[in-house]
Amino acid sequence: MAKVAILGFGTVGSGVLEVLRRNAASIARRAGGPVEVKYICDIRDFSQHPDAQLFVKDIDVILNDPEISVVVETIGGVEPAYRYVKAALESGRHVITSNKELVAKRGAELLSIARRCGVCYLFEASVGGGTPIITPMHQCLAANVITRIAGIVNGTTNFMLTKMAHENMDFDSALALAQSLGYAETRDPSDDVDGLDAQRKISILASLAFGRHFFPQNVPTRGIRAITVQDMALAARQNAAVHLIAWANRQEDGTAALGVEPMLVPNHNQLAGVEDVFNAVLVEGDMLGEVVFYGKGAGKLPTASAVVADIIDALKNGVEIHDSLFWQESAPIEGVYENPEKGDYYVRLANATPAVSRDLFGDEIEMLEASGGETMFTVRDITEREINAICRTAQSAGVQVGVILRHLEK
Amino acid sequence: MAKVAILGFGTVGSGVLEVLRRNAASIARRAGGPVEVKYICDIRDFSQHPDAQLFVKDIDVILNDPEISVVVETIGGVEPAYRYVKAALESGRHVITSNKELVAKRGAELLSIARRCGVCYLFEASVGGGTPIITPMHQCLAANVITRIAGIVNGTTNFMLTKMAHENMDFDSALALAQSLGYAETRDPSDDVDGLDAQRKISILASLAFGRHFFPQNVPTRGIRAITVQDMALAARQNAAVHLIAWANRQEDGTAALGVEPMLVPNHNQLAGVEDVFNAVLVEGDMLGEVVFYGKGAGKLPTASAVVADIIDALKNGVEIHDSLFWQESAPIEGVYENPEKGDYYVRLANATPAVSRDLFGDEIEMLEASGGETMFTVRDITEREINAICRTAQSAGVQVGVILRHLEK
Repeated sequence: MAKVAILGFGTVGSGVLEVLRRNAASIARRAGGPVEVKYICDIRDFSQHPDAQLFVKDIDVILNDPEISVVVETIGGVEPAYRYVKAALESGRHVITSNKELVAKRGAELLSIARRCGVCYLFEASVGGGTPIITPMHQCLAANVITRIAGIVNGTTNFMLTKMAHENMDFDSALALAQSLGYAETRDPSDDVDGLDAQRKISILASLAFGRHFFPQNVPTRGIRAITVQDMALAARQNAAVHLIAWANRQEDGTAALGVEPMLVPNHNQLAGVEDVFNAVLVEGDMLGEVVFYGKGAGKLPTASAVVADIIDALKNGVEIHDSLFWQESAPIEGVYENPEKGDYYVRLANATPAVSRDLFGDEIEMLEASGGETMFTVRDITEREINAICRTAQSAGVQVGVILRHLEK
Repeated sequence: MAKVAILGFGTVGSGVLEVLRRNAASIARRAGGPVEVKYICDIRDFSQHPDAQLFVKDIDVILNDPEISVVVETIGGVEPAYRYVKAALESGRHVITSNKELVAKRGAELLSIARRCGVCYLFEASVGGGTPIITPMHQCLAANVITRIAGIVNGTTNFMLTKMAHENMDFDSALALAQSLGYAETRDPSDDVDGLDAQRKISILASLAFGRHFFPQNVPTRGIRAITVQDMALAARQNAAVHLIAWANRQEDGTAALGVEPMLVPNHNQLAGVEDVFNAVLVEGDMLGEVVFYGKGAGKLPTASAVVADIIDALKNGVEIHDSLFWQESAPIEGVYENPEKGDYYVRLANATPAVSRDLFGDEIEMLEASGGETMFTVRDITEREINAICRTAQSAGVQVGVILRHLEK
């Protein structure tokens, strides 16, 4: 019999309780014995909850109970989650989390504490909701050097982009719909639409793939606010779909480039057809080639089922297996990780004729459309630094850069 | 330092040697020490091979060497592989295999021997080549009851169907091309085109998902020989693609239905866009919903990299983790596992007018086309048993049933 404490009884935390109960028999068989929730720690009042007797407000009740072998952290955010996780690991408890912000910001340090204390810090649910990504990456691809990751890791923006592409909805209406369905925060949707959620997830995946910590604040990030229905239509005309892509590439010199940006994904790419709230992550290994993991990126029970799989994993294997689920600490850099590779870009300018566009971006640009004072074209074979420099020149000349979208494939 | 023996130096076996050498450093880090191939057992003459000193012809050399902790079986087929694997497990060696035929036919027995002897019998490479499927299924979905599997698990037929769909190639030309590229056996391509390879793979996946052995010979199986370019075109007109689907469903009463058959996959389904030699397996869990694992289904290095990941796994975790990678022995049945669910079918009859078709299949059928003595139509909401009975009646009335293709989604 294993006793578990859940910290934070929100969507995922309550889902963990539900999954552990609904599939209790098969979970017990796989975990080598029953798994029981002994405490739920939440500062809110749950005195009317059917399981009221499980709730505590004081983390020390949990830390001081030697029966607790696994702590599930589903609080989210850095504090107080960080303090609680650290204390739980240091007191010899496995910690399972869905908290991507904490893993992205302090993962290397917490993994190192876990290793020192002989326990697991597992976080499959932090990326892709219930879709298995972390475990296949570090375990099934163990014979590979991972060279590239490209993923749709934010279900909310993917849902919005799907509505914009197929139902001709503009950004504001798509956002309002996402909010009304509970996919986006009503108060402040910027974590999703500005790419911060995706930034955290790609930091985690890159850290795991490349073996040292990459900090979310260093990932160059563009959200989807600037995308219009017209951009979507022009993408479709080029046999491509627009998706918010979180990506990381191993460079030839051993360094890495990372980014989060809306991109033109050609229809033949496996990521192009990923719609609604689904997530998909493409991982390329040097021996394996490309694999893609696809599934629902969020949701109470899917995410909770990933947490529970990690609980089973920790109980069965303890720390043995997880030597490969580890990365080195590193220091954040000034500025952002830069993408040195040349790419093709879709550009939309306002207040610029085709002639002005050619003056700015060169005669070789491929015109797509010009209407209503806007000009849309393709620029090929250019680095991010180069195109950013031209965009600054354009802006200082009174031209408004509506959007630039890199092509996922050259 | 772990010492490994490879049995069978064909495509996958030689790939294992190559992967172990090319990524030796990172593999050693993950496995907790270097992994070295000490023997290669093959009955053929490799005296001119650069690694000639590793080759032995007698399995007993390997079984009698106490340094060998892992045996890789890449011989294929049932004998002598079965005898060698059994002896290796019984002498306390972990066995890693890519041999789907042996797992499908004797998996339960070999898993049971492995458990009794305290070693692993691992077979990630037996399904999906290098694409992780087995491990995510038994580990990441551990909190789920698996309800459904549907996969494109044979790259050769998928390649042929892609050529038929997009390049208007007929079956014979597509087969000749697949043979010339080395995707299909030249001597006898029936393992691929008649669905026997897929039959073995779905037996393995269903056994793992449902916890007891399902025998390949009991899986109702139709290959792709009857498919014509016209069928593909009519599928496209219905916004669907034709793929050879290996599927398994958990029934409400706890039994399971399995099958291998070419099906109409609607374009919005994640399996529809899987082209060329790629594989994709959709798994549905009761908590998680649908996930899809996608990647190259074959190839020397991808498949070998899955074998090597299993080697690392066995060396790191030994038998602990693999309690969930297990299923019960069972007896084969007379006949085949039956699909009790109603479905929609595409039917092509030769030597039958629309009127005759309606007489046979009912007035509600939806006519798609009638030309050159052939009639194509859709029959809805009918069980396999019912449609098979009508087809037998049709044949005895001199009507030739060209093909019947179930729709993957109703």
